Amino acid sequence: MKKLLIMSGKKCGALARETAEVMGTPFYQIHSRDFPDGEIYVRIPADVAGVDVALFSCMGGNPNRGLLEALLAAYALKENGARNVILAAPYLPYARQDASFKPGEPVSIRLVAKLLEDAVSGIVTVDMHLHRFHDIKDVFGGIAAVNVSAMPLLARYVSSRYGRMPVVAPDDEAEQWARRAAETIGSEYYVLEKERRGDEDVEIRGRGVNANRALIVDDIISTGGTIEGAARLLRERGVEEVYVACTHALLVGDAEAKIFNSGVRDLISTNTVPNPYARVSVAEAVARGLSEIRREK
Amino acid sequence: MKKLLIMSGKKCGALARETAEVMGTPFYQIHSRDFPDGEIYVRIPADVAGVDVALFSCMGGNPNRGLLEALLAAYALKENGARNVILAAPYLPYARQDASFKPGEPVSIRLVAKLLEDAVSGIVTVDMHLHRFHDIKDVFGGIAAVNVSAMPLLARYVSSRYGRMPVVAPDDEAEQWARRAAETIGSEYYVLEKERRGDEDVEIRGRGVNANRALIVDDIISTGGTIEGAARLLRERGVEEVYVACTHALLVGDAEAKIFNSGVRDLISTNTVPNPYARVSVAEAVARGLSEIRREK
Amino acid sequence: MKKLLIMSGKKCGALARETAEVMGTPFYQIHSRDFPDGEIYVRIPADVAGVDVALFSCMGGNPNRGLLEALLAAYALKENGARNVILAAPYLPYARQDASFKPGEPVSIRLVAKLLEDAVSGIVTVDMHLHRFHDIKDVFGGIAAVNVSAMPLLARYVSSRYGRMPVVAPDDEAEQWARRAAETIGSEYYVLEKERRGDEDVEIRGRGVNANRALIVDDIISTGGTIEGAARLLRERGVEEVYVACTHALLVGDAEAKIFNSGVRDLISTNTVPNPYARVSVAEAVARGLSEIRREK
Amino acid sequence: MKKLLIMSGKKCGALARETAEVMGTPFYQIHSRDFPDGEIYVRIPADVAGVDVALFSCMGGNPNRGLLEALLAAYALKENGARNVILAAPYLPYARQDASFKPGEPVSIRLVAKLLEDAVSGIVTVDMHLHRFHDIKDVFGGIAAVNVSAMPLLARYVSSRYGRMPVVAPDDEAEQWARRAAETIGSEYYVLEKERRGDEDVEIRGRGVNANRALIVDDIISTGGTIEGAARLLRERGVEEVYVACTHALLVGDAEAKIFNSGVRDLISTNTVPNPYARVSVAEAVARGLSEIRREK
Repeated sequence: MKKLLIMSGKKCGALARETAEVMGTPFYQIHSRDFPDGEIYVRIPADVAGVDVALFSCMGGNPNRGLLEALLAAYALKENGARNVILAAPYLPYARQDASFKPGEPVSIRLVAKLLEDAVSGIVTVDMHLHRFHDIKDVFGGIAAVNVSAMPLLARYVSSRYGRMPVVAPDDEAEQWARRAAETIGSEYYVLEKERRGDEDVEIRGRGVNANRALIVDDIISTGGTIEGAARLLRERGVEEVYVACTHALLVGDAEAKIFNSGVRDLISTNTVPNPYARVSVAEAVARGLSEIRREK
Repeated sequence: MKKLLIMSGKKCGALARETAEVMGTPFYQIHSRDFPDGEIYVRIPADVAGVDVALFSCMGGNPNRGLLEALLAAYALKENGARNVILAAPYLPYARQDASFKPGEPVSIRLVAKLLEDAVSGIVTVDMHLHRFHDIKDVFGGIAAVNVSAMPLLARYVSSRYGRMPVVAPDDEAEQWARRAAETIGSEYYVLEKERRGDEDVEIRGRGVNANRALIVDDIISTGGTIEGAARLLRERGVEEVYVACTHALLVGDAEAKIFNSGVRDLISTNTVPNPYARVSVAEAVARGLSEIRREK
Repeated sequence: MKKLLIMSGKKCGALARETAEVMGTPFYQIHSRDFPDGEIYVRIPADVAGVDVALFSCMGGNPNRGLLEALLAAYALKENGARNVILAAPYLPYARQDASFKPGEPVSIRLVAKLLEDAVSGIVTVDMHLHRFHDIKDVFGGIAAVNVSAMPLLARYVSSRYGRMPVVAPDDEAEQWARRAAETIGSEYYVLEKERRGDEDVEIRGRGVNANRALIVDDIISTGGTIEGAARLLRERGVEEVYVACTHALLVGDAEAKIFNSGVRDLISTNTVPNPYARVSVAEAVARGLSEIRREK
Repeated sequence: MKKLLIMSGKKCGALARETAEVMGTPFYQIHSRDFPDGEIYVRIPADVAGVDVALFSCMGGNPNRGLLEALLAAYALKENGARNVILAAPYLPYARQDASFKPGEPVSIRLVAKLLEDAVSGIVTVDMHLHRFHDIKDVFGGIAAVNVSAMPLLARYVSSRYGRMPVVAPDDEAEQWARRAAETIGSEYYVLEKERRGDEDVEIRGRGVNANRALIVDDIISTGGTIEGAARLLRERGVEEVYVACTHALLVGDAEAKIFNSGVRDLISTNTVPNPYARVSVAEAVARGLSEIRREK
């Protein structure tokens, strides 16, 4: 197999360097900064002629800048002779815009996928939000695409720290995550029901969990409303210790307050989106995904 | 010719509506807002099946959001059956990144052009920054592209308000703008010399202007350093009243302070980038550009 | 009376310069920009020892930066010997946070007023949002405070352009503005009823307006939901031409789309918040306010 | 001593909770989010009547929002009956603006200190940038102020992971940090010389370090230029393994690229500013500082 270099955009260097260590490949940090008028400046810091490059882009928190940076960097890599560019986007934005809910709305993830397909020859992501699409290959039809999961890593971290406990999906969409986490640690899982009454107004219903401790899991925590509802329900039904784990901790608005003030004992996330609760690294999972993509070719 | 609708993205509605009035076509404002996590939400508010749409996007001030919004809106228009989508981008960002100054840098405007070419079938812009490329058609090879100028409008506005006066280009690149402005009002023009000593450190040299009043023109004012240098030079050489006109007033950093504290009497810009000095509308020029594009097809 | 200088922070220079022209006083633009880490840099560009300074600060759109910039600039003016500093804040942020709606909430406008009172000796603002407080002097108890209105200017502009018409307040709070506007142009006014069902979900009720044209007025347009509701109601009740005028056009989210897609013919605002619909300048009103403050002392 | 509650503003919850665990005190996350127009909303989530509150505010990355949030929260705490409010600001912004370098510039840290002194009765910070001021008590004269250091924690972390090595101060200002770090691990320290030639253009000079490994330390890493210069110098003088440790990792612009592409092996920071390199927690140091403040009273 051809030599692989790992290169990282802004804010993704820590994860990219760790992945490079896992894979035993050289690492470079791309020069990426913003001009005062908001335009992104990008510069590739090494010779990439003829080599394969895994381009890391952490798009959480600033998805538009992240997408443009990835497109500019991939373009620069190609212009400088890189053979293949594989995008490692640990968090893929716009994946929740996976349907046209009202007339006139685009299926935004389709456009995002198209932009990326035109720019790179493969993509690795972590726990992509798959709801109306059921497989990453339904979204990325034209390039190699691998979706690795951080749920086993999260489940193992939590159970090693706080003991084995039942896993709870706060809604239908999260069942896939709860099942995966529960399987990893050999516990059972429960699925709650969510009724959405507004952008940030949800009601969570369901029977309780017959245990003193429980772990709520989800792929993305955004405003925290779903987690808040689930945690309150569990607490009311007598669960004393409620823990929360997620892959992508966006934590917008007052998410932290909603989560901790509803009685959650601890919040654990991965480092796909840089945030202070990131205690589980996805480096090994991403490394595995990159190897898989390279074998496929 | 087929029916034309004008639709506008965020912050571009005032100019788009005025253009619609000039052209006698219906106008709609696209629903465009940001989710708390930074993702853009877009919704087309009217039936566009089978019609041509001129999509307005004011990208100054937030170029990455502007580009993504335009791509999402164009995609939504196509998905909803629009026949042709023509982009009206009064200010085209990334045009100054028109060369690879250091190894590893992309020619970013090439990528931006490619993204837009894949999304729309024509583009109208105003006073595109053309330095290393000499014609908009060298940048947009695959779609119809029209570049209209606001210089005649600016020159006429200034001379009607303050009288006819010589026009000054603060550097070589601006000669094209000074010539155009001077021709419009029948006055002479001068070109100063700029030596760039750093990102925001320039020195302007040149003989004086034999007049009591002078008008400095440029396409873009960003940090204001070039204008400051030119204004100081003119003031030192005895020009009592210095006026400044530009098409795209980005005015980042302390540009306003640099300009006004160097003795400039008045600053006049167009409305391609929303800003408090926008007193000249490009609506008629953009309308002309749109008509030209539609005739070309 | 002592000499007065007018000095402006970022984004407020156009209005400040116009006010300086009205008052016949010198104008300087303060150097104000942001370091890459987000800290504000401020520099006073002229000798202010012993003189009175009217400090202009346009805080709409970025209220926290605006407040800090004003505090830093006022502090620098004092350190450099200015005798009196009067703040001209055409738009005063945080004024809608005028009560503790839930336990634990601060009356934020009280803190903002306290910060400003400690920094300047007088304040002039335009159409301050007065709902639970009924007079600006109830908020600013320790310094001279003048609240001028742009409603007469807006009403005159609209009626000179589109003819005299009834004025409509979209809710109780706006009655004060509608009355003022209607008095100016000698027409009648109506008050609609608003029921708020969520942060961005309102219902507007009321009898119609017996006219072909009507002008909806408000002090602030933020998300545009209130205006949208009022415009739809008037249109349904047979008002053919609906116009909207406001002092402070914040226009966040998809406000423009809500307003124009609900059938509004034209939107007119002042320049207290820089925005593309600013066609009425408050310079003369602010100049009057500054003179009033200086007489009071 | 009276009961102490720990409460945290946005983005500071992880560190605050850990500090609460260290101190055995209850923890609450303050509801803090931004309205669409940029105003901050704050709500205290618990009864604070009669108790002392340690208010955590992580101001790095968004200093103006951070300061306003802290002022609003402190005000709300007081309004709700808190006895004493002590601010825990692990990173104190504006501390580098500690002199008037050009006429007309404010000593901004003086104003920031004044705003905080009016709002709280004590402050704990970590490795405050003290250059022209030599002691935190010279800045905060009116309230109890404690400045704890993370240098021993950083030095111990690095030496336990990579072995004992000489410590290098990249410039005079950093000598205090290098001395402290070197003392902790019983190694020697060196001071390099910095000549600043522009905002982001520095030259680092000095003799080499007679060792295979060296640890560069500083309080703040902003654009990374100083670290880049020091790392290049050490590498050129034959130091094979260069490590970098800092308390406050702001990492603006392309700092990561400058640091890693100049041959740095690893970058270690604390969690005073949330960032992906934060591997050393200051919770124990902040807890110590809070106890010291409370004893002083």
